[in-house]
Amino acid sequence: MKKITRLLIANRGEIAVRILRSAKELGIFTIAVYSEADEEAPHVALADHAVCIGPASSTHSYLDIDNLLKVCRTLKVDAIHPGYGFLSENSTFAKRVEEEGMIFIGPSAKAIEVMGSKLEAKATVSKFNVPLVPGGEEAITDLVAAKKMADEIGYPILIKASAGGGGKGMRVVDDPNDFENQMERAVSEATSSFGDGAVFIEKYIQNPRHIELQVLADKHGNVVHLFERECSIQRRHQKVIEEAPSSILTEALRQEMGDCAVRVAKACDYIGAGTVEFILDEDNSYYFLEMNTRLQVEHTVTEEITQLDLVKEQIRIAEGEELGYDQSALKINGHAIEIRVYAEDPYQNFLPDTGVLNRYEEPAGMGVRVDSGYKQGMEVSMHYDPMMSKLIVWGKTREEAISRMIRSIDEYKITGLETTLPFCKFVLKHDAFVSGNFGTNFVNKFFKPELLIEPLTKDEEFVGAAVIAKLFFEKKKSEETSDLTNILTPWKLRRLT
Amino acid sequence: MKKITRLLIANRGEIAVRILRSAKELGIFTIAVYSEADEEAPHVALADHAVCIGPASSTHSYLDIDNLLKVCRTLKVDAIHPGYGFLSENSTFAKRVEEEGMIFIGPSAKAIEVMGSKLEAKATVSKFNVPLVPGGEEAITDLVAAKKMADEIGYPILIKASAGGGGKGMRVVDDPNDFENQMERAVSEATSSFGDGAVFIEKYIQNPRHIELQVLADKHGNVVHLFERECSIQRRHQKVIEEAPSSILTEALRQEMGDCAVRVAKACDYIGAGTVEFILDEDNSYYFLEMNTRLQVEHTVTEEITQLDLVKEQIRIAEGEELGYDQSALKINGHAIEIRVYAEDPYQNFLPDTGVLNRYEEPAGMGVRVDSGYKQGMEVSMHYDPMMSKLIVWGKTREEAISRMIRSIDEYKITGLETTLPFCKFVLKHDAFVSGNFGTNFVNKFFKPELLIEPLTKDEEFVGAAVIAKLFFEKKKSEETSDLTNILTPWKLRRLT
Repeated sequence: MKKITRLLIANRGEIAVRILRSAKELGIFTIAVYSEADEEAPHVALADHAVCIGPASSTHSYLDIDNLLKVCRTLKVDAIHPGYGFLSENSTFAKRVEEEGMIFIGPSAKAIEVMGSKLEAKATVSKFNVPLVPGGEEAITDLVAAKKMADEIGYPILIKASAGGGGKGMRVVDDPNDFENQMERAVSEATSSFGDGAVFIEKYIQNPRHIELQVLADKHGNVVHLFERECSIQRRHQKVIEEAPSSILTEALRQEMGDCAVRVAKACDYIGAGTVEFILDEDNSYYFLEMNTRLQVEHTVTEEITQLDLVKEQIRIAEGEELGYDQSALKINGHAIEIRVYAEDPYQNFLPDTGVLNRYEEPAGMGVRVDSGYKQGMEVSMHYDPMMSKLIVWGKTREEAISRMIRSIDEYKITGLETTLPFCKFVLKHDAFVSGNFGTNFVNKFFKPELLIEPLTKDEEFVGAAVIAKLFFEKKKSEETSDLTNILTPWKLRRLT
Repeated sequence: MKKITRLLIANRGEIAVRILRSAKELGIFTIAVYSEADEEAPHVALADHAVCIGPASSTHSYLDIDNLLKVCRTLKVDAIHPGYGFLSENSTFAKRVEEEGMIFIGPSAKAIEVMGSKLEAKATVSKFNVPLVPGGEEAITDLVAAKKMADEIGYPILIKASAGGGGKGMRVVDDPNDFENQMERAVSEATSSFGDGAVFIEKYIQNPRHIELQVLADKHGNVVHLFERECSIQRRHQKVIEEAPSSILTEALRQEMGDCAVRVAKACDYIGAGTVEFILDEDNSYYFLEMNTRLQVEHTVTEEITQLDLVKEQIRIAEGEELGYDQSALKINGHAIEIRVYAEDPYQNFLPDTGVLNRYEEPAGMGVRVDSGYKQGMEVSMHYDPMMSKLIVWGKTREEAISRMIRSIDEYKITGLETTLPFCKFVLKHDAFVSGNFGTNFVNKFFKPELLIEPLTKDEEFVGAAVIAKLFFEKKKSEETSDLTNILTPWKLRRLT
């Protein structure tokens, strides 16, 4: 067993901050890397040491493997945490880190490779009794063969780039007459986006739930799952609100899907923290979608309901420690919800927004956690992902978590650019979300920008009326306004006028 | 059962913020009050409505009962939460609130009165098999009688003002020859401070632990305790670091003291959230000290280990709801520590400090909670208590909580004035604290301001040496510095030079 003492975090933003916090608590010396655009970022200030690794462009900074490894050698780093995105699912990087005699905090390069190819992933897990969405077992580019396959499976059909992710290169075909046209476009898009035109064809499950299972596997053959995350609230196939547990899973189904996720991890000899994604249809049938071989953005909700620090677990596992607990020791504690706060304008079709954070005040209090990569005065630029922070709440019940989230959204003050906070509040207050009865089509079905303007509450109407009354009285210089002035503080006037 | 819909919070700072957060989550319309000095304070901005109640002086704002009640009438408030301090233990206020037909969130005026007088409190609980520190059962002012009593009890002796609190008017006498002199001073001090010269005399317990039990009692006769808080780290009889659970209580002793606390609550027909304070001597004998008939500063650590929101519980109880759980349903979950962040200079005998918060950045992340009454740019003035905020951490174990607290203290950036953060870090890292083997004399025994200066770590020494090397190379305009420049970022230079 090799204790990690100097950890380099090959990432930026909230996830770099989140990782270095746990590492520091373990007494590990933390090294941040940053591009020229990130010099003032919190992950740089909070690390024990920080190194500039290039210009704003990710290709020449956060994705530059040669330079990163050079920094690691110079600083005698003994382990690297890749976070999510960037190099986290790059098997070449994982391999090269290990060749340097350093620890890559994640699974083996082999496991990353297998799960990185949708096709290979399916072939691997299918031997372990893991249900797959009906579809072709091989990626194809040939139009005629593809059409034949689609007819056999039955419409609607999903065409999906083999090398794609996050919804990129995905097309739904309802009408057989549209198939050829859509297939051609999918192949061409996959070629230009991923350098690989292979797509596969499968049954399209309408309005499913996106349910994923967190797994942890040590180097001694112990594998557990940490229950599910409900990630059905998506926009353009990107998750925006996640929660744990799911409000619709029965205990039996949870156990069944959990066991299945453990089999997926075993199928690829997985080590560390990973996520097995499923879709769940309206009949409670579930199908393996893919496995993400890294920490995920939404890992925090699992942390809140299991009270396990997943980054610490990753580090312990990478050091060679045993998990030290089995499935029966794990229990769900309360309910957690995460919203992703994007610098995007929900009033204008979620156009990414940029600007200086003139005011940036985070909510706080019992059960509230903000994992952020920004602070007041910083600029949000176009260089990176528009996700600024994650707001996570815990409650004893789902109901408490929802009310706490709404309170926290109201408390979150960001000026200088538009964010998705009003959109998230809309979702949290929507009947379909509150009831738990929703699927991945939630946004398309229910959201329109004009719904974001909230009607005045009774009290706001009352105060609004009082403001008008006050202005009226003031003109008359009446003595009667004294009480009113007391109620209508400068603060309230500022807020209303 | 009467639902509370409009709540006025008769307090300021972190506790006002903390209360209104829970009230908002319950859907209650919140009304803040503020003095002219507090116009920019977070509790004003976060409330649904806010009313200025007078000048900075507490007597003419936060303590002005007539004016507060007038505001309540005008705004049709149906309940008042007093927080801690100010009017929270003023039985006249509690009575007048109820006479107005509003709900006082706290116990009855009668219970406040009984527990507000140390003497009456002792007389009341002693009938319920609650152990008391050996001492006189009546408050006295007579010198001769007092001396006789002290001789009977045996030295060391504690002289304590009957109306005092927070360590004010307390004197320890080791030597019988000093007694008369000390007694005279104590009576005169009590007269001038509290308008009541009565003191009582009891056995002084050397280096005890201060252990207190949180209790909750509803209006239907259900009383539970929420385990203990360890509050032995004190400075001048003021708590500075609290934790839950205590690291030295056995399960049997916890249960015994818990049952005892429940008896104390029953003795005064207590309603709501209250705290029963004990001292625990080195033989594990415990003695009732007093009962605080309000929410306490350190209630947060109990919230973190029981996962109960105590303000919500107070509100539910005030509305007439039943607790809904019994003692057997309550379990300790993990470990929590709170530090109080004071605007006081630990390098200069904790002299209160004032100033503008040029930089104010709070720590965050899993298991970290900051309950604060300030934000960046605000002024910390002399008008009120110097406690700015509370930093609370939760961990699966005490060890994890300690490492998380140290990490969070390092992350807390406050400039513009001195705070007690370095002092708290000193305590958290001290062997006696880490071992759990400490008593109320911790600060006197171990702390000296010169101990606050931390030696450089090996890595800091390394970087320090490198800085010097870089400056040397730069003069020579050597090409060899390129690697070094990479390591020595502007950020690191700023930090070291």
